[in-house]
Amino acid sequence: MRKERFEAFTDAVLAIILTILVLDIKLPSNSASLSSLTEVAPKFIAYVVTFIFIATIWVNHHFLFSQVSTINNKILWVNILALFWTSLLPATTAWLGDHIMSSTPAVLYSLNVLLFNITMLILRSLVVNENQITNHIGLNVNELISLGINTMTLIVAFWYPPFSFIGLSIDLIIWISLQFIHDTSRKNNR
Amino acid sequence: MRKERFEAFTDAVLAIILTILVLDIKLPSNSASLSSLTEVAPKFIAYVVTFIFIATIWVNHHFLFSQVSTINNKILWVNILALFWTSLLPATTAWLGDHIMSSTPAVLYSLNVLLFNITMLILRSLVVNENQITNHIGLNVNELISLGINTMTLIVAFWYPPFSFIGLSIDLIIWISLQFIHDTSRKNNR
Amino acid sequence: MRKERFEAFTDAVLAIILTILVLDIKLPSNSASLSSLTEVAPKFIAYVVTFIFIATIWVNHHFLFSQVSTINNKILWVNILALFWTSLLPATTAWLGDHIMSSTPAVLYSLNVLLFNITMLILRSLVVNENQITNHIGLNVNELISLGINTMTLIVAFWYPPFSFIGLSIDLIIWISLQFIHDTSRKNNR
Amino acid sequence: MRKERFEAFTDAVLAIILTILVLDIKLPSNSASLSSLTEVAPKFIAYVVTFIFIATIWVNHHFLFSQVSTINNKILWVNILALFWTSLLPATTAWLGDHIMSSTPAVLYSLNVLLFNITMLILRSLVVNENQITNHIGLNVNELISLGINTMTLIVAFWYPPFSFIGLSIDLIIWISLQFIHDTSRKNNR
Repeated sequence: MRKERFEAFTDAVLAIILTILVLDIKLPSNSASLSSLTEVAPKFIAYVVTFIFIATIWVNHHFLFSQVSTINNKILWVNILALFWTSLLPATTAWLGDHIMSSTPAVLYSLNVLLFNITMLILRSLVVNENQITNHIGLNVNELISLGINTMTLIVAFWYPPFSFIGLSIDLIIWISLQFIHDTSRKNNR
Repeated sequence: MRKERFEAFTDAVLAIILTILVLDIKLPSNSASLSSLTEVAPKFIAYVVTFIFIATIWVNHHFLFSQVSTINNKILWVNILALFWTSLLPATTAWLGDHIMSSTPAVLYSLNVLLFNITMLILRSLVVNENQITNHIGLNVNELISLGINTMTLIVAFWYPPFSFIGLSIDLIIWISLQFIHDTSRKNNR
Repeated sequence: MRKERFEAFTDAVLAIILTILVLDIKLPSNSASLSSLTEVAPKFIAYVVTFIFIATIWVNHHFLFSQVSTINNKILWVNILALFWTSLLPATTAWLGDHIMSSTPAVLYSLNVLLFNITMLILRSLVVNENQITNHIGLNVNELISLGINTMTLIVAFWYPPFSFIGLSIDLIIWISLQFIHDTSRKNNR
Repeated sequence: MRKERFEAFTDAVLAIILTILVLDIKLPSNSASLSSLTEVAPKFIAYVVTFIFIATIWVNHHFLFSQVSTINNKILWVNILALFWTSLLPATTAWLGDHIMSSTPAVLYSLNVLLFNITMLILRSLVVNENQITNHIGLNVNELISLGINTMTLIVAFWYPPFSFIGLSIDLIIWISLQFIHDTSRKNNR
């Protein structure tokens, strides 16, 4: 498979999921008061966190495949599985936004995030094996930490549901910081 | 027509249909219980099967047109017809997800799949004729088996509606297996 | 403006509009009978006609810009106006699908089609002037006939609303036939 | 990051937001009268203004990045922030369309526009710094005027809500005019 079409399809799906998320934020058509904004607040926070999550997925996906030349069927279908977990995010995010203090939606959301991250871990190891990428050790350490945070978040969300967002936020801060550190170190090496 | 714009448009439509599917999975905004998840279960299964179907369409479409250099008007419009059948999948999937034990939605869904596959058979033969692709015999055998399974599924769905998903799943397993066999044989031939 | 980004954006918008159309075909979630299909029939016909219309727009847009090298601001903004009229089609199509025997939705739909076609006529003449395309005379004759059909459709739709679809269908048959004639003559000239 | 994938993702998100906007214009399915069109009129005006706003964002984004060779992480994430503000436009536009005479929706809408424009100002200065673009002085003057208009609009919208659209329209007329002036001066310099 040509890498360009593979990336373009992945990008299109991610862009659509990112934008479909917002369809759940419906400001009340029968009220124009400030209080109707505070009612939407939990949904809005859910939206912000998932938006950043999907943006991070896109940026990480780009960096992973920028080093890739060969896309085989295994990589193709694991990537489709990753898109599948991502495609469930609008539904699980909306449910958690509606019930920010309930454990079932919180655990479902954290499970969705965890399953995505496990799939990405598999995808990354497949890509690394297939393309003989050498600088992969650091990435794996980062991913194990990320997986640890996701698992912990899943467990804490049973007792304190809003932690599903807090745990994911910590995870995202680490990923985005690493991107900037990577950027700086690359600049210094020039 | 430039092949790139043709493929990009097809990919965009497939990516949007794939993602629009999920809009039908609405977790209840007035309940956060586990039982509300089991209620959504048939819709979820419908979603999973159709998601894999559309992903397979995309992968097969890619492999078909990776060998192509000329896109004439006939190919263009048969491709648009294929996209048309695909575009109906969110509606027919949602209806079957709502009524998993009713024969009318099951037959409609299986008919949708069958009409798509007949259109793809025509598209493939047009592409093969126009571009003098030599290794097309094996593909046609596979497609006749696939068409047989689709027709059988349509008939069985009259008596046992959930078979519409089972029949399609068998079909998809065959297609995806063939992709992997093709991948391995290509590797061995290198 | 780079032609590639211009075309890619146009294609993305057209692909999304094409796919959003189907969101209006909602099979009833409380009924699985055959009669619920006949109720959806007018909406389905509306969907089919508008789907073919948007596909034709996309094909024509491609042929027009395949001959183009320069995209200036005028072309850019007239193209955006054309996309604007297209973006209204899901709303006007759905309304007409709901009220196939009412003149207001029928006239609104035909007006939408007419305004789009006038915009495309302006776009085409801008493109022809800017890029010194020589084989434009035939195109203009075709477009005047098309405009005549659209205007006639708009008037007839006042008295017989379903003609809004019949008139557009006649127009589309002419356009698509011309594409095939063009294809054949090009083949013969080789 | 490759500039092509960055632009393609941005374009996809903008194209989807542009098209999702129209989902809020629902013509009444229980009425086919002319008066139902006048009821939709405020929503339609809201749609038109935001449609032009997003089209302008896309055109400006193109011109900005047509001069760019390097995309670093800072540019990437400020761009994602700009897409975030844009993604809220369908929700804030729909709310204002429902309550054209209420100050809360009007202020929220104008705030959304202002936050986007501040983000674009930061994005532009990052891009200019990183790529040593020399002709940036004129752009900045234009942007300060634009920011002034946005801030004024926000304040006036408290007292006269419909001004949120009038203020943005003035802003857009200036931006689009500047594009045409830029186009003409470029032609004369040839």
